[in-house]
Amino acid sequence: MSKALPHPDPEAIDLSAVLDALRDPIRRAIVLTVAEGGEKRCSSFLHCTTKTNLSYHLARLREAGVVRVRVEGPARIVSLRRTELDARFPGLLDAVLRGARQAPAPARLAETA
Amino acid sequence: MSKALPHPDPEAIDLSAVLDALRDPIRRAIVLTVAEGGEKRCSSFLHCTTKTNLSYHLARLREAGVVRVRVEGPARIVSLRRTELDARFPGLLDAVLRGARQAPAPARLAETA
Repeated sequence: MSKALPHPDPEAIDLSAVLDALRDPIRRAIVLTVAEGGEKRCSSFLHCTTKTNLSYHLARLREAGVVRVRVEGPARIVSLRRTELDARFPGLLDAVLRGARQAPAPARLAETA
Repeated sequence: MSKALPHPDPEAIDLSAVLDALRDPIRRAIVLTVAEGGEKRCSSFLHCTTKTNLSYHLARLREAGVVRVRVEGPARIVSLRRTELDARFPGLLDAVLRGARQAPAPARLAETA
């Protein structure tokens, strides 16, 4: 059995933690990618940032309850916790995603590329 | 004429800065107060926090474009930049305010009281 990473329960998802997770443009770009394209392997985001930074950003998003990270053998699969987030903070994710789409793509992802 | 404090232009209001401003529960409590009760003197928030902390939090909110702070003689009057925020990031403020209302009031404001 693969080792499971810790995730907050839906009712423990905290607004401060979610806003803190989403305030970073790299993390918003990751969230936008899984929001629009469905679940992705971590390696899909390696064009965005270095491996170390990516691990850090994915941990921030996972610990805040924004994404779920599933371990499958050597791969980590990232998906959005949309249903739980929408139930807990209705409209928040969509409002942030709309804002994230306004950002020019190169500016969104170039910072630590 | 009273000295004007700097505020970002509506089109310069940045999503990262807004989320960063709103991730703090004291700042959300200030925003919720002016969202529900209209503009307020800074002194209205002194039950929330110390004067120094209050100045800091109001500056963070003002610099992010979330509130407007008007100087009137010795008083500073705080109002929400709702129209500009709603135009720039539709639905974001309401989603955050709904989340802020869920927080128990004592927990919201007691931290630095």
